[in-house]
Amino acid sequence: MITLTTDFGTKDPFVGTMKGVILSICPDAILIDITHQIEPYHILEAALTLKASHHFFPVGTVHLAVIDPGVGGPRRPILAETAKYCFVAPDNGVLSLVYQDKELKAVREITAREFFLTLEDSAGSPGDSAGSPDPAKKRVSSTFHGRDIFAPVAAWLARGEKPECFGPIIYDYNSLLLPEAQILSDTHLRGKIIYIDSFGNLMSNIDHPLFQSLQDKNKGRGCQISLGPKVIKGINRYYGEAREKEAGAIFNSWGYLEVYINQGNAHQQLGLGTGTAINIIFL
Amino acid sequence: MITLTTDFGTKDPFVGTMKGVILSICPDAILIDITHQIEPYHILEAALTLKASHHFFPVGTVHLAVIDPGVGGPRRPILAETAKYCFVAPDNGVLSLVYQDKELKAVREITAREFFLTLEDSAGSPGDSAGSPDPAKKRVSSTFHGRDIFAPVAAWLARGEKPECFGPIIYDYNSLLLPEAQILSDTHLRGKIIYIDSFGNLMSNIDHPLFQSLQDKNKGRGCQISLGPKVIKGINRYYGEAREKEAGAIFNSWGYLEVYINQGNAHQQLGLGTGTAINIIFL
Amino acid sequence: MITLTTDFGTKDPFVGTMKGVILSICPDAILIDITHQIEPYHILEAALTLKASHHFFPVGTVHLAVIDPGVGGPRRPILAETAKYCFVAPDNGVLSLVYQDKELKAVREITAREFFLTLEDSAGSPGDSAGSPDPAKKRVSSTFHGRDIFAPVAAWLARGEKPECFGPIIYDYNSLLLPEAQILSDTHLRGKIIYIDSFGNLMSNIDHPLFQSLQDKNKGRGCQISLGPKVIKGINRYYGEAREKEAGAIFNSWGYLEVYINQGNAHQQLGLGTGTAINIIFL
Repeated sequence: MITLTTDFGTKDPFVGTMKGVILSICPDAILIDITHQIEPYHILEAALTLKASHHFFPVGTVHLAVIDPGVGGPRRPILAETAKYCFVAPDNGVLSLVYQDKELKAVREITAREFFLTLEDSAGSPGDSAGSPDPAKKRVSSTFHGRDIFAPVAAWLARGEKPECFGPIIYDYNSLLLPEAQILSDTHLRGKIIYIDSFGNLMSNIDHPLFQSLQDKNKGRGCQISLGPKVIKGINRYYGEAREKEAGAIFNSWGYLEVYINQGNAHQQLGLGTGTAINIIFL
Repeated sequence: MITLTTDFGTKDPFVGTMKGVILSICPDAILIDITHQIEPYHILEAALTLKASHHFFPVGTVHLAVIDPGVGGPRRPILAETAKYCFVAPDNGVLSLVYQDKELKAVREITAREFFLTLEDSAGSPGDSAGSPDPAKKRVSSTFHGRDIFAPVAAWLARGEKPECFGPIIYDYNSLLLPEAQILSDTHLRGKIIYIDSFGNLMSNIDHPLFQSLQDKNKGRGCQISLGPKVIKGINRYYGEAREKEAGAIFNSWGYLEVYINQGNAHQQLGLGTGTAINIIFL
Repeated sequence: MITLTTDFGTKDPFVGTMKGVILSICPDAILIDITHQIEPYHILEAALTLKASHHFFPVGTVHLAVIDPGVGGPRRPILAETAKYCFVAPDNGVLSLVYQDKELKAVREITAREFFLTLEDSAGSPGDSAGSPDPAKKRVSSTFHGRDIFAPVAAWLARGEKPECFGPIIYDYNSLLLPEAQILSDTHLRGKIIYIDSFGNLMSNIDHPLFQSLQDKNKGRGCQISLGPKVIKGINRYYGEAREKEAGAIFNSWGYLEVYINQGNAHQQLGLGTGTAINIIFL
């Protein structure tokens, strides 16, 4: 099984082309789209998306992530292995949150050009020339490594090639600095909005264990949440606890605090977006 | 086979996550998207979508519909069985048009928590703990039952579990009141626009049998269709019978009268939307 | 394997319905979406999309293309065969670039109504009545041949029916006149923008062999590219060679010259679209 996460959108045939390449190499692969609507070039959004979804897939799944503003330049293609999954992506930080997995086994630079698709292959059927005699002569496109490097490598992995066949282990892979929520005092927690979903829910970087650690020090006391000019009292257990079209706060399905409007769109109606500070104060 | 109909959009990893959950439980499931672009919380639109599409799938297909503004609150998860299909959805009326199926066999409340995905499962691989020893202790998320209840139940159904394993038959399930077209006189039929497709075609709730019943009383006479300020003469047999960029009326592929603009967008160009009254008068 | 290319969008259940029809006839078919966001009725865009993607799929793939403003009218449904693939589409030019394939074997009009889905079938399960005793009596919808003709024909092809079963060879199929780039002098090439991708990259109709033929006459000399008021010096090898937010020119993954803005959107930021003239001048 292979999942796909890109910023390619679904208007152009880019994603379909990658799937054709994969199925030409590994005809039995089951292909599942995570999303192709990552904001173009937005590496952090893709990192959060992968973190929230990758562990719901069967053990052995190959996760392919192509958000690749540096395509064709010096950035390396990489392959990360955890106990349960493989990840194939450019080395630009899109796997930052995977590197936090306690079961991370290795990160490799993908150097084995014999698995790549060449400009010559692109004219014909891409499965044909894999393992062709002189890989050194292969010329790979410089604008679409999703098609020419990442898709074929994912397909060969799904077909059973071992990660060690694709290149050497590296330790200097790139990680993003992720914004962390801060404990400002025994009664005050500050984070910020890091993701907006398509319902307009404003998700913060405050996770439940952090909140719990402060709540344990404030037993029996309520809290209020403020972001921008908006103040919300308490944290709901389900969306419907806020009245229709009113704002509420809730720990969402990813385990983070989010601000929502019941049957509305908080992003549009509050006029707030990513980067907005959010404060929790115990009263 | 499992179909998916949601209002989740395709930007977030919600749909991909549901598919990961399903394939972890039932690795052979074929997954087909009906749509994920139901207008958020728009239950009637989803009901029409299901009615128009579900019967084109092979017998035995499980249809999953998650338009769920009441998630986490008191609304029940349900399972409806017809002679050919199963439907898994929240009990908010999204299956209203399925209940009109003459082959409806039973509607059940889903109560068998051993099939649900728990917050504990979500950390690992979701297939692992199904049938775990103490389901009573399971804690399910309150914000994403698509992932934690509906997807796993659909997967277990596709894997061969019988509907009766999931909970008791109920009779007090919720149905929407659907707007019906009215015969105002022997020469006058009134309906309204209930659906707009992505070409901007304005679909009414006037179906062909109703129209036919009036036409039989008006043999040899023509009709005119009016909606808003627009008046259209007669009903076309195919779109191209209207001149390019001109409006026409036609019975569409779902069997309902719709107003269109040939190679244009009636919704935008006429400035009319759902709820607009449409009248057919025989002259 | 069957690929799907349409202008249906993904909001309505049209694509899901076609897939249900296909899987009812050919349950093992692997279905891959190329795109459903062709600009409505934009036949040239679909032709370019098919050209860029179809050859990345395994030999034997059936490519289904439904951009069909003339549905229900006199335009014919057709089936084109090349050495490696079959194409099923309306005869409106959407296969124009397939006809340029040196391995084109035959183009057929699809006349074998026994494979079509009828209005009667649409009430039940579509696989049931294929090969029913009296195909002459079948009534096909006039508004959705994607569902009623093209999907079933693709499914029967994928199931192993031979192309010759579907109808006679024709020679008078329709082709679009495609805009060609022109050599204006030994130092001057003129083309135009024919496609804009979802990153806003402006793709021209100047391909690499044409450019190379002029470059061979201008050895050691640089070139400049102009479109609208914008002038760009030289052609980059990868996107990152232009500074962030600056424009560059590059031969893209389809082999055509395109103008881009590094980590930006050339279409929006330059305010230029399809039809814009683009000139290459050797200095």
